[in-house]
Parts: sequence; structure tokens; C-alpha cells
Amino acid sequence: MDIKIRRAVKEDCPRLLELVKELALYEKAPDEVTVTIEHFTESGFGEKPVWWAFVAEADGVTQGFALYYIRYSTWKGQAMYLEDIIVTEAMRGKKIGKLLFDQLIEEAKEKKFNRIIWQVLEWNEPAINFYKKYNASFDPEWINCSINV
Amino acid sequence: MDIKIRRAVKEDCPRLLELVKELALYEKAPDEVTVTIEHFTESGFGEKPVWWAFVAEADGVTQGFALYYIRYSTWKGQAMYLEDIIVTEAMRGKKIGKLLFDQLIEEAKEKKFNRIIWQVLEWNEPAINFYKKYNASFDPEWINCSINV
Repeated sequence: MDIKIRRAVKEDCPRLLELVKELALYEKAPDEVTVTIEHFTESGFGEKPVWWAFVAEADGVTQGFALYYIRYSTWKGQAMYLEDIIVTEAMRGKKIGKLLFDQLIEEAKEKKFNRIIWQVLEWNEPAINFYKKYNASFDPEWINCSINV
Repeated sequence: MDIKIRRAVKEDCPRLLELVKELALYEKAPDEVTVTIEHFTESGFGEKPVWWAFVAEADGVTQGFALYYIRYSTWKGQAMYLEDIIVTEAMRGKKIGKLLFDQLIEEAKEKKFNRIIWQVLEWNEPAINFYKKYNASFDPEWINCSINV
């Protein structure tokens, strides 16, 4: 199988959003995806992009992606925040996740981010095991908060 | 006492970083603040700003601030991420935190962010009680992860 990692382009957006929804289903929150394709595309490829992504193609079909934005920590400065890393269920176990994650590390070094940060659901054991291979730190002491405005 | 909320300017940066360190001490992580004043200032007021802030002055002295950046959620679109909200210990109980938080809500509405999101330490009861007044949602199911690169 021919696997290729490349930077996402505007035309990828519909397929990326499809995969976002597949991940949300796995994370037991399918109704939480309320972003529109227009807003998603504009946010990545409009005048002021706020996210960047890499796509994994297997035999020419997009089977996964990793999407990040820049986080500003008043403790640590700029960091890469990994919002999503997804591989389709059918294509797991083929090291596609590893290729994507390695590409993120390359990108983080190149752009001089000091850290890559992300979140994982406490019951998502396969993901936690994957991250452990990278010697990731896990900190369960913080609680996510939000209000709608 | 004359309390005034205004947008932060470049000249505020040294005082803001001082307050960041005060908060880190309270959060039991004083050594975690490794950002330099140059990087902090450049990130807020350089060519490509990645954070924005409001300052609270009491009788002309900066006694608190709220700092945010833009988060991109593939579920919800752009949101205001509240990185820090701080009031000096001596000035607590004077509603300065409320004035700052209300200003953030104004700003979020104006900039069409759909949500304000942030994190709180699970043992920080005064902060949790403050956020409850805004009917904030609390979600402890996610774990923070990071690697240095």
C-alpha cells in the first residue's frame, strides 16, 4: 500500500469534516459537531488561517489527518495544540497514526514550538497507549470549563 | 476606589508577566513559567499577535488581567480560550474578576466566538465557585497531554 503524508489543501475540507464526524461518533459525541463546512474551510484557508493540517493518503484516498492550531501559554510561550488526529477504522494498525504524529513533531521543530499539547478521553486506552510510545506527560488535574456566549 | 477595565497595550507586558508568576505560585507551579519577556511581548504585540488581553486598573495600578487566544475546535469552530484571569491577592473580593469576565463575554460576542473555554485546577474551589455563577459547564473526562519537542 502506498501511504503518503502531505499538507492539507482547501479541497480536502469536505473529507476532513467527514472524518471529524467519524471521530466524534467514536468519542460518543456525534451531535457535538456543529461547525459548518463554510466556517471550517474559511478558518483553515481564509485570509487569517487559524488551523493547519496534514493529510494521510493510502492509495490516493484520504484515510486520516492531523489538525493543529497555535496555543499561547503564558507559562511556556507558543505551542502546537493538536486538535485532532484521526485514522479511519479500516486503516488502523498500518502505522498511519505514527507517520502523522512524526510529521507533527517535524513541523513543531521547524516552527520553533516548544511543545505539542493535546487532550485525550480518560477511557480511550488505545490512544493513551499510542501516546505513551512518545513518552507523553499526562496531567488529569485540570478540568475543562466552557460557557456559550 | 476607581476601577477601570481597558485593553492591554505593549507597555503592560512586564507587569502582566509579573502577575502570571504570582498566579503560577498560587497554582503550585512557580518554576513552570519559562517564557521570556521578549517572547511574551512579541507574541502579543508583534507582527502576528496570538494573544489579546484586558487589564484592570485600581487607582491607576494594574491589579489584574484576563488574557485569551483563539482556539479552533473542529466541533464548534472558533472559540475564545481564556488562558489566564488573575486578580492580585490584596484586591480580591472587590468584583474586579467579575468586571474582567464580563468584558470577555462582551468581546466574545463582538468577535462572534461561539464559546469561551478555559481550564481550572480541580482543587481551586474559589475559582470553581466563581465560574459557577456564570453557569459554566465542567467536563473532567479529558486529560491534558504534552511532549516537549
